[in-house]
Amino acid sequence: MLVNDVIDRLRRTTDTIIGEADLRERLAAGQPLRIKYGVDCTAPDLHLGHAVNLWMMRQLQDLGHQVVFLLGDLTTQVGDPTGRSETRPVLTPAEISANAAAFLEQVALVLRTDPAVFEVRRNSEWYDAMPVAELLGLFGQVTQAQLMSRDMFRARVEAGREIAVHELVYPVLQGYDSFAIRSDLTIVGSDQLFNEQLGRHFQQRLGMPPQAVITSTITPGIDGRAKQSKSLNNYIALTDTPRDKFGKLMSIPDQLVGAYAHVYTELPLDTVSALTAAATSGGLHARDAKLQLAAAVVTRYHGANAARAERTAFHQTFSTRQPPPDIPTVTLPTPPSTVLDLLLALHPTATRSHLRRLIHQGAVTVNNQKIHNPTTPTPADDILLVRSGPRTWHHVHQAVSS
Amino acid sequence: MLVNDVIDRLRRTTDTIIGEADLRERLAAGQPLRIKYGVDCTAPDLHLGHAVNLWMMRQLQDLGHQVVFLLGDLTTQVGDPTGRSETRPVLTPAEISANAAAFLEQVALVLRTDPAVFEVRRNSEWYDAMPVAELLGLFGQVTQAQLMSRDMFRARVEAGREIAVHELVYPVLQGYDSFAIRSDLTIVGSDQLFNEQLGRHFQQRLGMPPQAVITSTITPGIDGRAKQSKSLNNYIALTDTPRDKFGKLMSIPDQLVGAYAHVYTELPLDTVSALTAAATSGGLHARDAKLQLAAAVVTRYHGANAARAERTAFHQTFSTRQPPPDIPTVTLPTPPSTVLDLLLALHPTATRSHLRRLIHQGAVTVNNQKIHNPTTPTPADDILLVRSGPRTWHHVHQAVSS
Repeated sequence: MLVNDVIDRLRRTTDTIIGEADLRERLAAGQPLRIKYGVDCTAPDLHLGHAVNLWMMRQLQDLGHQVVFLLGDLTTQVGDPTGRSETRPVLTPAEISANAAAFLEQVALVLRTDPAVFEVRRNSEWYDAMPVAELLGLFGQVTQAQLMSRDMFRARVEAGREIAVHELVYPVLQGYDSFAIRSDLTIVGSDQLFNEQLGRHFQQRLGMPPQAVITSTITPGIDGRAKQSKSLNNYIALTDTPRDKFGKLMSIPDQLVGAYAHVYTELPLDTVSALTAAATSGGLHARDAKLQLAAAVVTRYHGANAARAERTAFHQTFSTRQPPPDIPTVTLPTPPSTVLDLLLALHPTATRSHLRRLIHQGAVTVNNQKIHNPTTPTPADDILLVRSGPRTWHHVHQAVSS
Repeated sequence: MLVNDVIDRLRRTTDTIIGEADLRERLAAGQPLRIKYGVDCTAPDLHLGHAVNLWMMRQLQDLGHQVVFLLGDLTTQVGDPTGRSETRPVLTPAEISANAAAFLEQVALVLRTDPAVFEVRRNSEWYDAMPVAELLGLFGQVTQAQLMSRDMFRARVEAGREIAVHELVYPVLQGYDSFAIRSDLTIVGSDQLFNEQLGRHFQQRLGMPPQAVITSTITPGIDGRAKQSKSLNNYIALTDTPRDKFGKLMSIPDQLVGAYAHVYTELPLDTVSALTAAATSGGLHARDAKLQLAAAVVTRYHGANAARAERTAFHQTFSTRQPPPDIPTVTLPTPPSTVLDLLLALHPTATRSHLRRLIHQGAVTVNNQKIHNPTTPTPADDILLVRSGPRTWHHVHQAVSS
């Protein structure tokens, strides 16, 4: 593939390229690039926004380039302050290890993980062996003012909040990582641009050509808010079921359809334009545009068959207000006394407060009766039809109490 | 000795005590204190100002307390930014080692060095073994704002100068040292107060009672300027000869006599008052006060005989304008062609520019003739009487050129 074609393909979801000339040169040289994909080892929940970067890396993998999946196990012990207004609690090695495994599993939903194009590293490899004097030497390569110029730090200072010194020096560690793994390119969110530019700085200081940095396009959350965040629960996770992905995409504001189709699918750009126009005109046109978007995204992650099935299920559920045809059946050995207990049995990882909220929001029905109170007794029927949330249905088979 | 008496004796040369109640308690408990004496391993040239702290430690050694002489060999590689407006060059391990040896030699001019009351440590002992993650954990105990509150850093920021990150974190390392050696007390210049208070902070955070910190009285340089500095050459070094010590003390401004006698000698306080009054009245009274001060200081470092000899020599040189009786003779194999060459032969470590300056200042005489020009030919006499500077005389025996 010609260098121009590679760059053009990446550009579809690119915000900024730093070092584009170097990148072009290295692509033209025909050597496989080493693409740094650095993550911290906090509990991962990758969403479509993260996957934008992953798909760009995947495209490069398909051309023979190598992703270096760098687990920041050392730096996670430090705590990345990115995007945090408060100092973050430090994780234990066991938590870090578990998170790293979960991360790898999610990443594998997009990236190829065969060793020819995928390498797993941990930054404890170099930091555990690094004498304190050498680390301090790295610190000598960067000034206090450089580090404090990060937007996030300035914002904290303005808000009168503290910056612990381990947070201040975090970018130095992340930057040096680029040198340690000989990164040619890294594809990150714009909130990482500062740290990765420090990577370029360290590579140059230490006599290595600097990595290129691509920041990817940011798309708003499914509620239209700028930031996708766990606390707002306004994103589509890679581990969401096809049903959830489909349903969430059907729920986005009309004006987001174009951006989502552009960034989250590989639909041809003229199709994207047509979808954008249709969504803008509202009504059934908008609904059909969303169906096409949702089908394209589900196809990308789960294949065309899954997309077709979800499209059918969606029609049945929402067009006819009937439950979908493929509801799972759960058998409970002990009949739950209240509806809240029933929901807890169906959602073993959900919190009581979350389930109570579902009930108070009117999102829970049992045998098509809306439940208003968590302490409502569970009907004694042998089989119950339970809806908990807009797209979650169960048949519950409960042992009859004697 | 009663606790009150110990404190009172220290107070003669104390500016501030932090943690005085703790200090009194520990003295009262009768256990030997561990007194941190931390130095960086740059080329030492200890002067009477430094010796104020050393004498306080010596007094405590005489009571059985222990000085922990802590060579900051690791931190010297980092470079202490104290009092420096510019980032300092980093020293090699060989330079550090040589400087440490020289330091120990000078310290031994005041402190007792028998192992019962003197322990030598290097902070590389703990920093070489410290994992990076642990160091970063220390960084988590302190905020960027805390470190930037140092006067010196603020001054640099105001002057638009940079602070490298290794300099910013230097106080963390110096502070942790107090924990590592279990310091009970440290006696420092006020420019170290910030760093040593961080020592208290770390000791407390890590579950240890915090050290007391005494800052000592600062006395001006012999030219009356507030700061004693190498570049101003306005101090009396511990390694200065008795002659130089005596002569420099005779040269101080009258109004400094009281402060010097108070801080640099152990003369009874009523004697100090009398000397202060005499110096203030000027003329011969002032000169006699300085003679007594100079004799007391020389006695402290070199004994009463040396002081008596210098007093006699001083009288002969300055009262009678004659050369002193004990001039060294230097034999030169090759006759120097110019007076500048002659001076270079007598002062092998001095720079040409320094010696030229001496000549231009009128401080050089050969056979009692003042020399005005560095290129003046050296007189051909077999023996020359050379004066280079106010108190430096040589007889020069030169081989006659054939």
